[in-house]
Amino acid sequence: MEVFVPQTVSLWRDVERIVSDALRDASPDAAVRRAIDELPYPEGKLVLVAIGKAAWQMAASALDALGDRVDDGIVITKRGCAEGPLGKLTICEAGHPVPDQASYDATEEAIRLVEPLGEKDVVLFLVSGGGSALFEKPTIPPEEIAALTERLLACGASIVEINALRKRLSAVKGGRFAEICAPARVFSILLSDIVGDPLDMIASGPAYPDASTCEQAARIVEKYRLDLSERARKQLAIETPKKLDNVETRATGSVKYLCQSAASSCEKLGYFPVLLTDRLSCEAREAGSFLASIVRTSAETPRSLAFIVGGEPVVHLTGKGLGGRAQELVLSAAREIAGLENVALFSFGSDGTDGPTDAAGAVCDGESAEKLEKLGFDIFETLRDNDSHRALKAIDTLIKTGPTGTNVNDLTCALIKR
Amino acid sequence: MEVFVPQTVSLWRDVERIVSDALRDASPDAAVRRAIDELPYPEGKLVLVAIGKAAWQMAASALDALGDRVDDGIVITKRGCAEGPLGKLTICEAGHPVPDQASYDATEEAIRLVEPLGEKDVVLFLVSGGGSALFEKPTIPPEEIAALTERLLACGASIVEINALRKRLSAVKGGRFAEICAPARVFSILLSDIVGDPLDMIASGPAYPDASTCEQAARIVEKYRLDLSERARKQLAIETPKKLDNVETRATGSVKYLCQSAASSCEKLGYFPVLLTDRLSCEAREAGSFLASIVRTSAETPRSLAFIVGGEPVVHLTGKGLGGRAQELVLSAAREIAGLENVALFSFGSDGTDGPTDAAGAVCDGESAEKLEKLGFDIFETLRDNDSHRALKAIDTLIKTGPTGTNVNDLTCALIKR
Repeated sequence: MEVFVPQTVSLWRDVERIVSDALRDASPDAAVRRAIDELPYPEGKLVLVAIGKAAWQMAASALDALGDRVDDGIVITKRGCAEGPLGKLTICEAGHPVPDQASYDATEEAIRLVEPLGEKDVVLFLVSGGGSALFEKPTIPPEEIAALTERLLACGASIVEINALRKRLSAVKGGRFAEICAPARVFSILLSDIVGDPLDMIASGPAYPDASTCEQAARIVEKYRLDLSERARKQLAIETPKKLDNVETRATGSVKYLCQSAASSCEKLGYFPVLLTDRLSCEAREAGSFLASIVRTSAETPRSLAFIVGGEPVVHLTGKGLGGRAQELVLSAAREIAGLENVALFSFGSDGTDGPTDAAGAVCDGESAEKLEKLGFDIFETLRDNDSHRALKAIDTLIKTGPTGTNVNDLTCALIKR
Repeated sequence: MEVFVPQTVSLWRDVERIVSDALRDASPDAAVRRAIDELPYPEGKLVLVAIGKAAWQMAASALDALGDRVDDGIVITKRGCAEGPLGKLTICEAGHPVPDQASYDATEEAIRLVEPLGEKDVVLFLVSGGGSALFEKPTIPPEEIAALTERLLACGASIVEINALRKRLSAVKGGRFAEICAPARVFSILLSDIVGDPLDMIASGPAYPDASTCEQAARIVEKYRLDLSERARKQLAIETPKKLDNVETRATGSVKYLCQSAASSCEKLGYFPVLLTDRLSCEAREAGSFLASIVRTSAETPRSLAFIVGGEPVVHLTGKGLGGRAQELVLSAAREIAGLENVALFSFGSDGTDGPTDAAGAVCDGESAEKLEKLGFDIFETLRDNDSHRALKAIDTLIKTGPTGTNVNDLTCALIKR
C-alpha cells in the first residue's frame, strides 16, 4: 500500500533524517570508533587520558571498544558533564570556561599517571573542545595569566596572539604534555570544534607541535607594551616543542564529518549534494540571505539539490530579543525563499544549543514568511531585535535535540526537492 | 616558442578577459541586438521611444540595426548621458533621480508621438533603469507626490508599497503608456537593473501590466494613515491595466546575461563554472567572507573552478572612509583567502562605478592580505572605516573601466586555477 505524502511533509521528513544522521555520525562515539582501530597495540601499558567537554563520552566509547586493554586512566571534563563511573578510570569535573583548582589538581593527576611510563607504553589521549581550561598546569600564578589575558583582549589582540603567550605559560599546552608522556607513545584522537581544524589550537594542543615561536611571543609583548613579571618573562623565553616523535594524531570528529554525513544522507534521499563550505564564519543573517539567494537561483533545477554548509556564523547583537546564530540564519533565509515550493532550509548547532535558547536551530520553507506575517511578525524587525527564537517558536519550526555531547560547529542545509 | 607565464599572471589575465567579455555581453548594445531580430515588421509606422539611463546607447544600437525603418522617435535620458544626435530622433535630457520639468515635457512629447498611431503601427520601446524619474506625467501636482513619497519612506513603507501608490498617480506608469500607444503594438526591450527582474518594477513598468490593485493601494493609505488631497484619492481609485494585449516584452540585458557571459568565458578559459546566484543582496563584506569560505573549502579541487555570483550586495556605513560595495566584498574576501595559491577573486559594478570612487571594483588573490599588512593596513579596521578604496589602491588591484553605459548589477567571481 502506498501512502500519499504531500511534498512538504516528505521534505520535512528528509530534514529530520539528515539532522539525526549527522548528529549520529559526528558524535564523539562515532569519532572515537572511526579512529580507534588504528591504535597501536601496546607491548606495555595502555593509559587513557580524556580532556574536554566531550571527554566522558569519548572515554566511554574507547572503553567500550577496548575493554580490559585499558590499564588506567583519567577523564577531565566540565562540571556536570560526567555521566557516571567508567570502569577503573578516575573521573574529574573541573571549571570551564575559567580553570579552577579542580582543573589544576586533575591535570597533576594525569601527569602523575603518564610520567612514569616507558617506551613500550601508550597514552590514548582523547581531546575535545574546552580542554584549554580543563587541562592546565600554569607556570606562573593563575591570577597573573588571567590578568594578562584580560589585558590582551582589551588591546584587541587576536586569539592566535593570545595563545602564543598562554601556551608558554603552561606546563602542558603547546605540545608539552606529549613531552611529559615521552618516552611513551601518544595516540591522540581530536574532536575539533574549531573551523578549519587547526590542530595546535584544539584544547591548546597539549600533544601537538606548537606553530608559534619565542620570537613571536616577544614581539607580541612589545606590540601591546605588556608589563610582565620576571617569572613570566622567563617562561615566555622557553621554546615549545616544534616536533614530537612520539605522537600520532587523528583529527576525526569535526565539522567535515558533519558535512560528509549530511552529503551522504542527502544522496540517499535522492538529492544531488553540493558542499559549499565547511568553514562558514560570517554574520548569520547575511549567510541566510546569501544561501537563500543561491536557492532561489537554482529553484528551477530539474533534479533535487542539497546545498550543504558547515561552520559557525556569528551574531552581532543589536537588540534584546531571544535567539541564536542558527535561528537568525534560518529566519533571514525565510524572507528570501518566501513563495518557493519544495524548498526547505535548516541550520542547527551540533551540540544541541543555539544561543541562550532551548533549541538547537530551526527549519523554514517557502511558506514560513507568510505564516510569520499572519502572526504579526515583521522578519526585518525581529532580526533587528535579535528575537528569532520567539518568531520561529510561534510557527513551530524549531529543531530541538537536547544536549548531544557533540560540538563540531553548525550544519546548515538547503533542500530543493523535485 | 612557448613563453613561461607565472600562474598568478595568467590568473590575472583570466580576470581581465572575463571582465571585458562580461561588459561586452551585458552592454545595452548587445542586449538590443539580441532582442531586435524578433521585432515584428510594421505594416505601418515604426516609432522608437527610449527611456532610462541607457536610452541613448539602446537607441543608437536599434538605429544601427534598423536604419531607415525607424520613422520617428524620442530618447529621454539622464542629463549628461546623451552622446550626440541620432538621425531623426529627438534627444531629451532630464532630471534624475528626481524628475523635473524637462522630464514632464519630454514625456508629453513621447505621448504626442504615439497617441495618433494606428493598429498597423509599432512602438519600439527601449527601457532601462532610471526611467521612473525620466519618464513621468504626474496626475497630481509633483510636489504632492514628492511629499507623499517622503512620508512613506519615513514610515518605513516598502518599495513595493510606495510603487503601488506612485503608479496610480502617473499617467504613464503601471502599464498606462502602453494603453496610450494602443491600438499600435508595443515591442518593449527591457534592460533590467533590478535583482530578480520584476518586469513591472523596471522604470515603473510603463508597458507592463501592474501587479498591484486599488484595494492594496487603499490598504496602504490606511496602514500609514496618509492624509491625501481629494484629487489624489480619486486617482488612487482608478485601476491600472492588468492585461495588455498590444505589448510584447523582451527582458534581455540583465544580471543573468552578465553571469551567463562570465560562465561562458570561464569555460573557454578552462574553468568549470558554478553559478551560485544571480540575485545576491546581502551585506558586501559578509558576502566576501561567505564566498571566500566556499573558495577555501574547494581550494584542493583537482580541476579549475569558477564560482560566479551576480547581484548587488549592500554596504551599511560604519565609518567615513572611501569605498564601494564591490571593493568591500573583495577586501573582506582577501583576509579569508590569504595564503591560498592559484586563487583570484573579483567583483565589479557593471556600470563602471562602485560607490563614490573612480573604480568599478577590485581583484584580490592569496597574497593581497600580506601585501596590505606590510603596508600597514589592518583589513578589519579598514572595513570598519569603510575605507576599502584606499587599501586596494595601495596594492594596485582596482578594476577601472570608466562609465560603461550598462547597469545590470555587479559580477563577482572566484577563480581556482589548476
